Amino acid sequence: MSKVTITDLTLRDGHQSLIATRMRTEDMLPICDKMNAAGFWSLEVWGGATFDACLRFLKEDPWERLRQLREALPNTRLQMLLRGQNLLGYRHYADDVVRAFVARCADNGMDVFRIFDAMNDTRNVRVAIEAVKKENRHAQGAISYTTSPVHTPEQFVAMAREMVEMGCDSIAIKDMAGLLTPYATGELVSALVDAVDVPIHLHTHATAGLAEMCHLKAVEHGASNINTCMSAFAGGTSHAPTESMVAALRGTAYDTGLDLAALQEIGFYFREVRKKYHQFESEFTGVDTRVQTTQVPGGMISNLISQLKAQGALDKVGAVMEEIPRVREDLGYPPLVTPTSQIVGTQAVMNVLTGERYQTITNEVKSYLQGRYGRTPGQVNAVVRRKAIGDAEVIECRPADLLGQEMDKLRTEVGDLAGSEEDVLIYAMFPELGQEYLEHRRDGKLVPEPLEPVGASKEDKTAPVEFKATLH
Amino acid sequence: MSKVTITDLTLRDGHQSLIATRMRTEDMLPICDKMNAAGFWSLEVWGGATFDACLRFLKEDPWERLRQLREALPNTRLQMLLRGQNLLGYRHYADDVVRAFVARCADNGMDVFRIFDAMNDTRNVRVAIEAVKKENRHAQGAISYTTSPVHTPEQFVAMAREMVEMGCDSIAIKDMAGLLTPYATGELVSALVDAVDVPIHLHTHATAGLAEMCHLKAVEHGASNINTCMSAFAGGTSHAPTESMVAALRGTAYDTGLDLAALQEIGFYFREVRKKYHQFESEFTGVDTRVQTTQVPGGMISNLISQLKAQGALDKVGAVMEEIPRVREDLGYPPLVTPTSQIVGTQAVMNVLTGERYQTITNEVKSYLQGRYGRTPGQVNAVVRRKAIGDAEVIECRPADLLGQEMDKLRTEVGDLAGSEEDVLIYAMFPELGQEYLEHRRDGKLVPEPLEPVGASKEDKTAPVEFKATLH
Ligand SMILES: [Co+2]
Ligand SMILES: [Co+2]
Repeated sequence: MSKVTITDLTLRDGHQSLIATRMRTEDMLPICDKMNAAGFWSLEVWGGATFDACLRFLKEDPWERLRQLREALPNTRLQMLLRGQNLLGYRHYADDVVRAFVARCADNGMDVFRIFDAMNDTRNVRVAIEAVKKENRHAQGAISYTTSPVHTPEQFVAMAREMVEMGCDSIAIKDMAGLLTPYATGELVSALVDAVDVPIHLHTHATAGLAEMCHLKAVEHGASNINTCMSAFAGGTSHAPTESMVAALRGTAYDTGLDLAALQEIGFYFREVRKKYHQFESEFTGVDTRVQTTQVPGGMISNLISQLKAQGALDKVGAVMEEIPRVREDLGYPPLVTPTSQIVGTQAVMNVLTGERYQTITNEVKSYLQGRYGRTPGQVNAVVRRKAIGDAEVIECRPADLLGQEMDKLRTEVGDLAGSEEDVLIYAMFPELGQEYLEHRRDGKLVPEPLEPVGASKEDKTAPVEFKATLH
Repeated sequence: MSKVTITDLTLRDGHQSLIATRMRTEDMLPICDKMNAAGFWSLEVWGGATFDACLRFLKEDPWERLRQLREALPNTRLQMLLRGQNLLGYRHYADDVVRAFVARCADNGMDVFRIFDAMNDTRNVRVAIEAVKKENRHAQGAISYTTSPVHTPEQFVAMAREMVEMGCDSIAIKDMAGLLTPYATGELVSALVDAVDVPIHLHTHATAGLAEMCHLKAVEHGASNINTCMSAFAGGTSHAPTESMVAALRGTAYDTGLDLAALQEIGFYFREVRKKYHQFESEFTGVDTRVQTTQVPGGMISNLISQLKAQGALDKVGAVMEEIPRVREDLGYPPLVTPTSQIVGTQAVMNVLTGERYQTITNEVKSYLQGRYGRTPGQVNAVVRRKAIGDAEVIECRPADLLGQEMDKLRTEVGDLAGSEEDVLIYAMFPELGQEYLEHRRDGKLVPEPLEPVGASKEDKTAPVEFKATLH
């Protein structure tokens, strides 16, 4: 039993989960002094959807945000979330892009890289891990947690072992849907602690109201670090409150050593900040346990409902909910995280709306069944695969092995628009959006999306949510 | 290790905590079928502030609500919260009133009586416990949980033993402020389980974000029953979500046996109901850990701020927050629950605003120091007492021992207005309000407080809160 450390997620996953990733750098900087002094093991401040949101909505340079946060947080590790070979985009990148991206992150101040793959295919995280180690930074291998007939604690342990062999300095359990229960957490953490010599970190979401209990069982079973969010950005689809976990563990063998009164001050700051972004709030921010009965993440259910409503097919919700697990089974039980949640959800909607399963098959499902996202956790349905891709070849290799070097090509394409390697990588992540951003910047035409004044009507709430944003 | 049972609080403490006790019977009845079938050990549906709110705001007969709920919930225990010798009012009643009140509750369908005293003076709960046992109903003795230099687990255990000797069928830990931490809960539950042979129930509030973890440690240490609230009325100053606790314990030795999908349907019903009462929502419904650093309940802090703001003395908040623990110490460390939270809070405000401590002393503090609320947990400050009451006698007996029989007098006073013993007790609880209610009922002039339409402006939010409501 050792002291527990905390990674606070407010500046990345917190606002990504609750206000559609809209927090601006100007609202982060004033509190950085206090956050820097609080004693967190790390602050997750970058990666995930923040890079996209900076360019698309805030018209901020994400690299400039990183540099500013680095300067404002000199004594605390900065942490980011990286989608393995997908980096912060939505496709597999060539290895030279992965290496260049990681090098630029490190050079601009990143300390800890949490690296995951939606399929838990370790081939898709290897190059990123190596690149982080080459930069002498902390590489954290993340397990995308899910439940299915083919997922066992033993498999997660094997994956952790593999990632440690690849050079990871710590292992994270990443439970984005809030699927973990307290006793399942204890069991998995125990198995991981026994199997590997590096620290175990827990990242789980509060969606089903189980996060605090999961963290408690995690530390009792030897987890070193828990991921929490300042109370003002906690709860709902976000995380357990930082202040509450610090209070729960105070004076015990798991004491975090953090000063609760100092954290409360930070919490009050963020209460005010959150008000500014009211137009991005979900209608419901409470507890939703449906993921525990359906295994379908709450955010995915809400998105399906919006999608069906838009098509006047709200009466099909029940049928789609029943179809999702079947499609997931056909696809070999991928964890339901970006992008696999979209792939499975969209195909399930098609299967129901067309009236015949797999009459129409999305291009994403076709790619998936060709192996272009990586190795599937379980066997795919051979009949469905034949229907989807006929006799087309199924690739067995790592998807990125089929890509040649890309950086030179990207540099050429973006041309004078890029003033730095960082600019090239903006273009690499989002070719259209990135180019538009760089052009507007050149022309002095960057205009952040406007914020409605506090107290304004909430009637027209159409903040893009993850499911829609990543469907393109 | 045995199965865990659940008492759901939605119909009493849930709406009392979150929407100022405003839920109407018409919004309870449609879901009773499903709640009745869900398998709860009991449903807390009555008592606390509901009696007052029915008469004051809803213009409902609280006894009629009880009878309707009894009929609609034939297979589930109905539970209420009773303030010992104070019943549901704000003074000590004579024993014949206590006996008559308990008999009427039992006769109208109450099964389980949770009985507490703000001072933890067992003399103030004895008659109520005896009355419940005389009616062959379940008497639950509740410990008002607090922390102070004079409160120890041993004292709480001694109190539990005493209440069991008085006839209690179970013991509840009642933590209205959210002071409990998970490991303190485990320790206290263990001590109680070892000391007494009756089941231990845990009632704690989610204010500081610790409730779920407290429940988890409680059941691990042998608690039989946890008190939760349907997710739509959970969190904030309310309770841990019922669905989340059921999900957390499913498939373990503590399985509640409740069907999660069935509970989710009930939860969705209450999501819609809550919208109807939006005008009573607090501005902030998230986690507030300040009670863990200041020992002052969050609700009390908010109320003090409102009170100081109204007097243009908002700059004195810090001074008042520091004065509260000093006043509490002077008064012998009473738990801060109704009415002691008001007594301590108001005197602390006076001490700060007048510029001299105890220059002005409230009548409530004078009565308190005369022993008229009961025995104090610790020694009171003798200097303050002399200043407050001079040489006046301090009573050593049980406060109600000074009261003669009251029922005949009450019957005479209310006269023809009362058509039943229940009506007499309405008048007994709230002489002015009760009489007005009975008169309006006689004259066909009962008009419930109007509800603002959903979607209306939230600007003028002045819902009376507990602190104000009970200051009169
Ligand atoms: Co996350
Ligand atoms: Co309560």
